[in-house]
Amino acid sequence: MFLEKITSQGLSHLSYLIGHQSMAAVIDPRRDIQIYLDIAHEKGTKITHIFETHRNEDYVIGSVELADITGAQIFHGEELPFAYGKPVREGQTFELGSIILKILKTPGHTFESISIVLYDKDFGLEPVAVFTGDALFIGDVGRTDFFPGQEKETAGLLYDSLFNKILPLGDHVIIYPAHGAGSVCGSGMADREFSTIGYERLTNPMLQLTQRENFIQAKLKEKHSKPPYFLKMEEYNLSGPPAIGSSFSLLPLTPDELSHAVQSGLQIVDIRSPEAFAGAFIPGSFSLPLTMLPLYTGWFISYDYPLGLVAESYEQAMLAVTYLKRIGFDDIQGYLYEGMHEWTISGKDFAGIKAVYAGDIQTRISSGFSFTLLDIRTEEEYQKEHLPGSTHIFIGDLEKRINELDKQQIITTFCGSGMRAIIAASVLKRHGFNNVETCFGSMRACARGVCEIESSL
Amino acid sequence: MFLEKITSQGLSHLSYLIGHQSMAAVIDPRRDIQIYLDIAHEKGTKITHIFETHRNEDYVIGSVELADITGAQIFHGEELPFAYGKPVREGQTFELGSIILKILKTPGHTFESISIVLYDKDFGLEPVAVFTGDALFIGDVGRTDFFPGQEKETAGLLYDSLFNKILPLGDHVIIYPAHGAGSVCGSGMADREFSTIGYERLTNPMLQLTQRENFIQAKLKEKHSKPPYFLKMEEYNLSGPPAIGSSFSLLPLTPDELSHAVQSGLQIVDIRSPEAFAGAFIPGSFSLPLTMLPLYTGWFISYDYPLGLVAESYEQAMLAVTYLKRIGFDDIQGYLYEGMHEWTISGKDFAGIKAVYAGDIQTRISSGFSFTLLDIRTEEEYQKEHLPGSTHIFIGDLEKRINELDKQQIITTFCGSGMRAIIAASVLKRHGFNNVETCFGSMRACARGVCEIESSL
Amino acid sequence: MFLEKITSQGLSHLSYLIGHQSMAAVIDPRRDIQIYLDIAHEKGTKITHIFETHRNEDYVIGSVELADITGAQIFHGEELPFAYGKPVREGQTFELGSIILKILKTPGHTFESISIVLYDKDFGLEPVAVFTGDALFIGDVGRTDFFPGQEKETAGLLYDSLFNKILPLGDHVIIYPAHGAGSVCGSGMADREFSTIGYERLTNPMLQLTQRENFIQAKLKEKHSKPPYFLKMEEYNLSGPPAIGSSFSLLPLTPDELSHAVQSGLQIVDIRSPEAFAGAFIPGSFSLPLTMLPLYTGWFISYDYPLGLVAESYEQAMLAVTYLKRIGFDDIQGYLYEGMHEWTISGKDFAGIKAVYAGDIQTRISSGFSFTLLDIRTEEEYQKEHLPGSTHIFIGDLEKRINELDKQQIITTFCGSGMRAIIAASVLKRHGFNNVETCFGSMRACARGVCEIESSL
Amino acid sequence: MFLEKITSQGLSHLSYLIGHQSMAAVIDPRRDIQIYLDIAHEKGTKITHIFETHRNEDYVIGSVELADITGAQIFHGEELPFAYGKPVREGQTFELGSIILKILKTPGHTFESISIVLYDKDFGLEPVAVFTGDALFIGDVGRTDFFPGQEKETAGLLYDSLFNKILPLGDHVIIYPAHGAGSVCGSGMADREFSTIGYERLTNPMLQLTQRENFIQAKLKEKHSKPPYFLKMEEYNLSGPPAIGSSFSLLPLTPDELSHAVQSGLQIVDIRSPEAFAGAFIPGSFSLPLTMLPLYTGWFISYDYPLGLVAESYEQAMLAVTYLKRIGFDDIQGYLYEGMHEWTISGKDFAGIKAVYAGDIQTRISSGFSFTLLDIRTEEEYQKEHLPGSTHIFIGDLEKRINELDKQQIITTFCGSGMRAIIAASVLKRHGFNNVETCFGSMRACARGVCEIESSL
Repeated sequence: MFLEKITSQGLSHLSYLIGHQSMAAVIDPRRDIQIYLDIAHEKGTKITHIFETHRNEDYVIGSVELADITGAQIFHGEELPFAYGKPVREGQTFELGSIILKILKTPGHTFESISIVLYDKDFGLEPVAVFTGDALFIGDVGRTDFFPGQEKETAGLLYDSLFNKILPLGDHVIIYPAHGAGSVCGSGMADREFSTIGYERLTNPMLQLTQRENFIQAKLKEKHSKPPYFLKMEEYNLSGPPAIGSSFSLLPLTPDELSHAVQSGLQIVDIRSPEAFAGAFIPGSFSLPLTMLPLYTGWFISYDYPLGLVAESYEQAMLAVTYLKRIGFDDIQGYLYEGMHEWTISGKDFAGIKAVYAGDIQTRISSGFSFTLLDIRTEEEYQKEHLPGSTHIFIGDLEKRINELDKQQIITTFCGSGMRAIIAASVLKRHGFNNVETCFGSMRACARGVCEIESSL
Repeated sequence: MFLEKITSQGLSHLSYLIGHQSMAAVIDPRRDIQIYLDIAHEKGTKITHIFETHRNEDYVIGSVELADITGAQIFHGEELPFAYGKPVREGQTFELGSIILKILKTPGHTFESISIVLYDKDFGLEPVAVFTGDALFIGDVGRTDFFPGQEKETAGLLYDSLFNKILPLGDHVIIYPAHGAGSVCGSGMADREFSTIGYERLTNPMLQLTQRENFIQAKLKEKHSKPPYFLKMEEYNLSGPPAIGSSFSLLPLTPDELSHAVQSGLQIVDIRSPEAFAGAFIPGSFSLPLTMLPLYTGWFISYDYPLGLVAESYEQAMLAVTYLKRIGFDDIQGYLYEGMHEWTISGKDFAGIKAVYAGDIQTRISSGFSFTLLDIRTEEEYQKEHLPGSTHIFIGDLEKRINELDKQQIITTFCGSGMRAIIAASVLKRHGFNNVETCFGSMRACARGVCEIESSL
Repeated sequence: MFLEKITSQGLSHLSYLIGHQSMAAVIDPRRDIQIYLDIAHEKGTKITHIFETHRNEDYVIGSVELADITGAQIFHGEELPFAYGKPVREGQTFELGSIILKILKTPGHTFESISIVLYDKDFGLEPVAVFTGDALFIGDVGRTDFFPGQEKETAGLLYDSLFNKILPLGDHVIIYPAHGAGSVCGSGMADREFSTIGYERLTNPMLQLTQRENFIQAKLKEKHSKPPYFLKMEEYNLSGPPAIGSSFSLLPLTPDELSHAVQSGLQIVDIRSPEAFAGAFIPGSFSLPLTMLPLYTGWFISYDYPLGLVAESYEQAMLAVTYLKRIGFDDIQGYLYEGMHEWTISGKDFAGIKAVYAGDIQTRISSGFSFTLLDIRTEEEYQKEHLPGSTHIFIGDLEKRINELDKQQIITTFCGSGMRAIIAASVLKRHGFNNVETCFGSMRACARGVCEIESSL
Repeated sequence: MFLEKITSQGLSHLSYLIGHQSMAAVIDPRRDIQIYLDIAHEKGTKITHIFETHRNEDYVIGSVELADITGAQIFHGEELPFAYGKPVREGQTFELGSIILKILKTPGHTFESISIVLYDKDFGLEPVAVFTGDALFIGDVGRTDFFPGQEKETAGLLYDSLFNKILPLGDHVIIYPAHGAGSVCGSGMADREFSTIGYERLTNPMLQLTQRENFIQAKLKEKHSKPPYFLKMEEYNLSGPPAIGSSFSLLPLTPDELSHAVQSGLQIVDIRSPEAFAGAFIPGSFSLPLTMLPLYTGWFISYDYPLGLVAESYEQAMLAVTYLKRIGFDDIQGYLYEGMHEWTISGKDFAGIKAVYAGDIQTRISSGFSFTLLDIRTEEEYQKEHLPGSTHIFIGDLEKRINELDKQQIITTFCGSGMRAIIAASVLKRHGFNNVETCFGSMRACARGVCEIESSL
């Protein structure tokens, strides 16, 4: 029996391939499915079952394409009218060699959410592990805010799923959740990808709330963001998304071709590092550093127009293509041939953004220098700690609240480490803000004794 | 915090790299250490600690070379006079970012055996996992037969380590042992590489023997083989083995060069499949199919003479080099240029071995055909099930008991699946047995209803 | 300016990617086109032109699929009614940065054959190289036997193309032909892949025949084989073959699944080495060792039924898939899961073929032992040298002449090195010949002083 | 017979592996020799001979280490007292299967320079190709300025070698030189890597100078730069350089570790793109973008202190290690862990360089804005075209002429495309010039109609 965990960076999505000899199951496959085929071949097994723990909202599920190629059957919760696959019942079991998988309905995050309990037939009737989907994470539990007006009901359902279904499986049971630290599907997850029911019972803060009402109240107080692209994911994952195939040729675009395409609506996504973007970028482009791409593209980029990439290299651009397809951005026209260097030697104009050191921010604040320090982190982060005199607008709200900002003023974008700040700076530049700067290092640099910090808590 | 398990095929050896941010520890590194460096680089971390759970006897430890390259410190149990590294005390702790590792003395398999308990500082004082070395496996416990005359003492020590030290850590604790199924370090291991203390407490047959005396008696009844190469491993792993570096050029040898080298003592190791060996092989060569190499080379090949390889391809030969170096066979002169095909077109003589179908064996037995069906499996396997009229000699004893066999008689070697049978056939051929055949499929084919099977149990 | 030669093993097909900065052309692309995309990306260029030197008969051309992905235009000779691409005129030129490509009509091998002359605009008006298609090879010239009844005309056309069009380009011009040694498109090619017009003028035997009539007579005397699959290639390459995409999942088949599929017509192709096939094979399967696959599959395997592979490994099987698709065999159902070993342990019957040493053949001949030594090489090879008393049937004629052989007699297949001999042995086995053996090493072993050899020349 | 050309980027160094069956020769191996071993294994051949066309001055030769691993013999010209290898005589031949290599003394670039003529024994007595070392390039000939005071003699020797030895080999002979376009070993090379003696005779400008005296005068007028690191190369390549092995662990350095090491003399080499460096860099570091590393490191970095790298990624840093070792920089302590982002979040200070658009330079010049436009290209480039009012200092002279510049003035560095300009900017920053900017795109952007350009020719 083998079990492989596949981590999708950025989304912090975890999927699993579990199998024995010639049969295997995939739990929550991502859209670029080659990795499951590769592991299956390496293990000399055939993928026969695909399980979806729930209708995912943060990425495109790869079930349909994987089933088409392998002949596997797809299974999911029966409470949603999926256009593909088969519904499962509570207690339904599946045998794959010595593996037994048993369905446990664990609603709360969504109504059709299931967990899948794993037994090793060779070792008797005790469960050895459980795939918990978005019900139980390591260090946190799933969010329950997706059904406006029903938040109390879903929080209660999740309490019941956790305390009456998952915990009773036993302390010795290993848990395999659908997300790890960094996901927007929960905010308190451990950056450790292994745990057990017993360890969670002892250490997971939410599982200390053993009173149902306390648990519900805590859930209701949570604040989560919901990027607009989630709607597209929900639609795709109910009806079955289009296949992407593995054949894709990312075309090189000359500076002239790229400029021309922009006039027909092409959106330039610059995936280089914040430093490289600050050094020189194509006017009008979005800064979305590669590691930020999965989480922030869906806030700013439209599905209605094609994308063009600016990257350090072809390999980096191809990685971006993978990340973008995971969240349904399929119309990628190409990447800038020979990169930003080619653009500069073509004689076309470029822009830069001044990067400011945290220590200089502190000096400015101390000296009363007039500028807007624009903190674009979440409200929770901001309340916990921020610099005195800073302005707060969550990055997801930046475009709709942009009129609150003054174009004449120097605006220095600020976030946790400088990554989100460069995205915000590029958005402001696009909206005609010329005096935009960004603070590399941001709060993490400040926190090294470089700046004085305030808290609203 | 990340944890990577590295499986070394054939030896079924499991090592681990656990780290947090810029610090990481390796538990029981194998000799070809590049994989630890690669993972460390991928994770952007530095290997700062190396732990040996015990002085290993079945492979060459890579600690010294890994420490030389990374600057890491080596730690092991204090009961053996290691020529390198530092001894650890019971309860001693090591911090690597949010990781705490704590030493737990767990003697039994050897006297200096330790386990290493893992805590996540961010989640409090409960252990989350334990590296159990050769004390506790998944489905089995370590062997305790390495100290002749002290078997009772070591079995008792192991009982104490298991029941009084490891089990009390708690049912919720994940276990990470040093071996998986297929290792000669235990015979009942699960072919599943994940478990917890609680799951083992419930399902591991040896942990059901909660009475100390019963446990000891069961251990004393076990029969394990000890290949002669273990002595070399023990010597290496006490004094620190020679470094192998990563630079190695496996030279192609022409048929003439290979023939010439044989006259100076070179041992030909043929790592091709049993089918290819049976089809044609160089007279005098050993059949050791690649997957059999780690476990069976040490029974037949001498450290005193160089090796020459016959392989399907250069890549396969290089894999064999890695496997051979893991068990200390460093003097590999080259591989047969262009393989067996080159040998045959060179005009040199070759031999073959007739492969017999299990169904034909049954026919022979039924019809009273005169031949020796030589079963070379372990005594346990043989007693459990065998074909009527078969002769049993354990493969490890074959060379010393070879005079019991009759060169005039047809001898058909037989094992579990045909893999060990081809090794045995090649050994007999080397000893001048010309009427040797082998049964592909062997007991596994027989068990599909093809033959009548007996048992001595 | 860069020029990359892409060699397709087995077919000995040479294609080229030539480019400068952002534009590139491919000459005679093979069907698996990823390599052209990869090189183009590595060079940071875009494939804008595709040239076919002629309608190929020995492999499926990849032009249409490559054009679909890249947007490139396809060009070929105007004498055939291609269903895709554009015709070119004599003297027509194409500019790609500093590259100029100029069309030179060079009929003879086929009527629409062209060569493409390469100029470097930065260095003036002299040609630097020429892509000669199947007109001029290194050490040979193209065959002219494809149009029955018109052999004299085509040979004369080729003479004119060579002596009046290609040679006059100048001794200093490098030649890039469409095939290298090992191809069935010519028999005297050098195993050296670089030459010039001047070097060929001085050393190519066919270019010493400067009298038109002598040249034609020499061409008319040549004997070439034409495997039946050529018809399919000609049809595909006129109309445009189906795209294959890069997404392909080769499914593992259990022994039961494979057996079952055979009953519906599946053809088992065993691509393992001759030695492995001889050791054990599935009754009814074809031996087609991987390197033999491109040249010999088309003689024996039908396009009308699916294929199943027996391989050493998944990687080897995937390579076979590539080779098979290059010659239009697209319906590949899967490969034997875990290989021949899995088959043997499943309890199913298998067969073997006895491999005979060349020295033993000599002994048999000397001693008057009764057997058929079946030499299946080409007539030219046989006439040049063969063993006394051997029977000659060309491997391509084996099935239609099979009734000339005696099933009661021991038949030992024999060829140049043993590769084709195992194919022939497997074909005989399929036709119910049970006393079939094969001679590994065959003529090459014999020629090392092991056997007495005769010649009919 | 196969011939593989191995191109070392940056140095534009070309080496070759030529072989037949089991024997092969390497011509001018670079220091990182794994690629020769890999090709040899892929071809199933053994490297038996190593030739050095001359004692190289621009990179470290890999002969000694390659010979140690393979057992090959090394050969070079007899006019220098090499501490390793064997001298060769005029006309000496070497046979490797069907290959014949024949020594042709071709002094001029250096006194011991040889060419190696290639014959194919199967095709008679005409040469097919020649390895010309630094005597004849494609589009240029070797420089002859390495022996001060003897320039006339060496130029004359080169004339004799070219016109009396190489050209007489025949127009049909393919040439394989030791360098391609971009090398400092010649300035007029074609960016095409294939040619023949005949094509060069017709098109190479230097070969049009058929009068000995004219040729010598033209050579004497050439201006070449000689970076200081050449001395180290000459010393290494006479005595045999230290082996590097293939085992190397590039350690991650935290910002604190890197800062600390700088105080002991460590030189920070930032290999990121010019844009990333301009965006943010560690004060005191050298900008040496990866592709510039081979040619410009030797001008600025000392062999006496260790290096630390700042890179986009570990992979990029490892590539830099390879490039640096090729020119003898072996003492590389590590690379900045998690890159520049980690530095900024550590709270340490960083700097930036303003990037200026060529169009804005033009505006400044037109409007009489006061600044120094510092053109750091070669004198030849500057004379050919430059912007009006610009100051010229060759980048190799920048440090010794730095006092000619005014620290109070805005200095904008300017080169061909912006690559060398960022290097110069970083050097100025190190010397305390705070008002330094750089012009991305530089002359290439200007030449697109963006700026008015002057010429001194």
